[in-house]
Amino acid sequence: MPTTALSPDLVSRFAAITGEAHALTDAAAVSPYLVESRGLYHGTTPLVLRPGSVAEVSEILRLASETKTAIVPQGGNTGHVAGQIPREGRADVVLSLSRLNRIRDVDPVGNVIVADAGCVLANIQEAAEAVDRLFPLSLGSEGSCQIGGNLSSNAGGTAVLAYGNARQLCLGLEVVLPTGEIWDGLRRLKKDNTGYDLRDLFIGAEGTLGVITGAVLKLVPRPAGHEVAFAGLRSVADALSLFDKASQRCGAALTGFELMPRIGVDFTTRHIPGVRDPLSARYEWYALIDVSTSDSPESARRMVETLLAEAIGQDLVQDAVIATSEEQRRALWHMRESMSPAQKPEGGSIKHDVSVPVSSIPAFMAEADAAVTALIPGARICSFGHMGDGNIHYNISQPVGADKQAFLDRWREVNAIVHAIVLRFGGSISAEHGIGQLKRDELAEVRAPIEIDLMRRIKLAFDPAGIMNPDKVLRAGP
Amino acid sequence: MPTTALSPDLVSRFAAITGEAHALTDAAAVSPYLVESRGLYHGTTPLVLRPGSVAEVSEILRLASETKTAIVPQGGNTGHVAGQIPREGRADVVLSLSRLNRIRDVDPVGNVIVADAGCVLANIQEAAEAVDRLFPLSLGSEGSCQIGGNLSSNAGGTAVLAYGNARQLCLGLEVVLPTGEIWDGLRRLKKDNTGYDLRDLFIGAEGTLGVITGAVLKLVPRPAGHEVAFAGLRSVADALSLFDKASQRCGAALTGFELMPRIGVDFTTRHIPGVRDPLSARYEWYALIDVSTSDSPESARRMVETLLAEAIGQDLVQDAVIATSEEQRRALWHMRESMSPAQKPEGGSIKHDVSVPVSSIPAFMAEADAAVTALIPGARICSFGHMGDGNIHYNISQPVGADKQAFLDRWREVNAIVHAIVLRFGGSISAEHGIGQLKRDELAEVRAPIEIDLMRRIKLAFDPAGIMNPDKVLRAGP
Repeated sequence: MPTTALSPDLVSRFAAITGEAHALTDAAAVSPYLVESRGLYHGTTPLVLRPGSVAEVSEILRLASETKTAIVPQGGNTGHVAGQIPREGRADVVLSLSRLNRIRDVDPVGNVIVADAGCVLANIQEAAEAVDRLFPLSLGSEGSCQIGGNLSSNAGGTAVLAYGNARQLCLGLEVVLPTGEIWDGLRRLKKDNTGYDLRDLFIGAEGTLGVITGAVLKLVPRPAGHEVAFAGLRSVADALSLFDKASQRCGAALTGFELMPRIGVDFTTRHIPGVRDPLSARYEWYALIDVSTSDSPESARRMVETLLAEAIGQDLVQDAVIATSEEQRRALWHMRESMSPAQKPEGGSIKHDVSVPVSSIPAFMAEADAAVTALIPGARICSFGHMGDGNIHYNISQPVGADKQAFLDRWREVNAIVHAIVLRFGGSISAEHGIGQLKRDELAEVRAPIEIDLMRRIKLAFDPAGIMNPDKVLRAGP
Repeated sequence: MPTTALSPDLVSRFAAITGEAHALTDAAAVSPYLVESRGLYHGTTPLVLRPGSVAEVSEILRLASETKTAIVPQGGNTGHVAGQIPREGRADVVLSLSRLNRIRDVDPVGNVIVADAGCVLANIQEAAEAVDRLFPLSLGSEGSCQIGGNLSSNAGGTAVLAYGNARQLCLGLEVVLPTGEIWDGLRRLKKDNTGYDLRDLFIGAEGTLGVITGAVLKLVPRPAGHEVAFAGLRSVADALSLFDKASQRCGAALTGFELMPRIGVDFTTRHIPGVRDPLSARYEWYALIDVSTSDSPESARRMVETLLAEAIGQDLVQDAVIATSEEQRRALWHMRESMSPAQKPEGGSIKHDVSVPVSSIPAFMAEADAAVTALIPGARICSFGHMGDGNIHYNISQPVGADKQAFLDRWREVNAIVHAIVLRFGGSISAEHGIGQLKRDELAEVRAPIEIDLMRRIKLAFDPAGIMNPDKVLRAGP
């Protein structure tokens, strides 16, 4: 029988490492660490530790190894798959990285920032801006998510098209292993072919192989020109043609290409204060096009104007606006980022974070729409996302007037149908949010046994005692 | 006592898999597989197998596992660290991927090519060009190296600055594991956060964890504008300032920034037919600047002209030319690519493939130059390379008139001195060539024990029988 308690002696030993003030046991104090933003998971914990140094993290892990205590690393607690939430009914200790929040070094000539894992993403962005550089990782929760969590989940966001995921923005890592040993891989090198790629193994491992405590992050030049356009389209197929054209014309200057449906624009204009539809007529689909250039503001403007003129001439784009101020650019992105919150007032929403090859997006969406509406007549599909990355947040709002809980109870059933279609297109059931607890059992079903077996072997090789964030990504035990 | 023979029965069983015609045992037939391009390593083998399908690779590995036979995968045999060469005095079986040379699929809309591991890199580049796309991986040996080897060694080359290493250009892999099991990871997804990053573990593992048999490769738009400039500089410090300025002005359009020394230009103009110095006066250092733009040919031209005018105005650049034809652009790159072959007629050359943080290049080179010339007076340092990536091929030609073999006998001694300086700058002893046999023992010395231990655990987890390219990257055995 699993227990939810730790012995008072063990609690004391852990607390001695961080100091009593940073070892939380009180129910009210630990409660914010036990539930994630969507409220799908509620965990239990006897203890939340808030270490103030890498050495303390190391000591905690050493004691955890010795006593076989499960440790759940947690950053800003913004993850969507409950990878950061302790298991229910167990005695998992939460290890909060929040106090490790120092930016260790900013080097604009070398184009790197070295940061503690607990640094909030927005603070890193600001530190880059202060030396006239850009740290391009950008996502909805950037005001509270932490870089350690971003790396552990290989976060995506809005700038992946040009700059890649968190993985591509990280040059080096510092990781505390389950034994408490510290791997200092804080290298600032763009090229380094010296053995197995440990860095990319820890990135995306969701804290199951070790605790990321620090990272070397890549900076890029701040663009001289930045334009955001919003285009009304007839169909997803037209959006794909427009994306293809934009890629050809803009190359690496194309920093974002987001797809939004009519219903999403309706939801945001209805529920999100200040959001308005910038086009006078209504269209079935919309694309947000973001272009950044290095040489001059004019070149970005010229690129977007040429692209839109050509696309309108070819009847790919029905109408479009180009933002003319920073405020307008922000407003267009704000509409896109409000797609998910705007679904809340419309009742229950069953969500998917899937990817398919970019060229398959129209066919995937047609099949999925047909299957979902056949299953749940009246379901309102609000699918949007990072079209340029093949990553669609295929979200489904409940039928008008339906019972919210009854709708949400069909989450797994709907997932199964949508994911089966995703897999037929060679897609992924988790494009950017990871596996955590939410998709753990499904992962084992949709991947070949040999792939799961290789992952298990890695887990066992790095964490033979099974104390690192157990039951996340892979089910613990044989 | 290790043996260099296999039992006739086992040879027959392997030969039955590929057919006799593709199982080479004759000394003359196997000899091309036993020596690498620099002639530093000569291996032995009782058998070279040339399978014609992934199924045959799988059968070979299954039999090898069963019989504990060591297998050395080999592509185009262009590697510089002898990772592809069987061990001397052992009975390693060479597994040549050359007959797996089919391009499986070209998808210009999805921007991917799916290729067998044995496809020659130049053939993949051509297949991309045929559909108006670019496969940006480009290196000196592209006419004979194979993509499986490029991925196994995470090859770099001349376009890393903008497009990344082989790793960044690969979306998915097919790998035959030591047991013969096949991992089908041929996904065409830009985003996929579903568990541990197996792909990046096999990439750069130099065939020690499994045999890459196929890959999904990323294509990018072919640039509309392409300019190459050649600039005469006073110092490496000026080269760094120029690189910084070029990064700011050109952003992602900066597709190459290569550094060359005076002596390298002398060597190439002296020994390589057709190479001439395009500038009328002599300078201590040179930069090759490569710029590619997507929107128009004019924008690339404008970018380079603006950059050079500014840099000349600031006294960073002493003189410069911009190539005015494709022939001239090729000629400038040809000079850069001739830096290494042009050293051959100058006698022995002790080579390094190192990287340091970009901002440390001037200080690293000053220190290394002083140490090397103190050790070997008259040594002629011809250090050049991918400055934008922090990757310097720090090569040293023998003093004029010195004994070649006596000079080359000091290879390890010189390496030790240069690598010690590299490590003080937080650098890497192998930026792009890998570890293989050449740097295996040194790797174990320069990396922390915990790092080598983690790599050993991975090796053991994937290849418990120790049959996959043993003694490469890590020393076999306990």
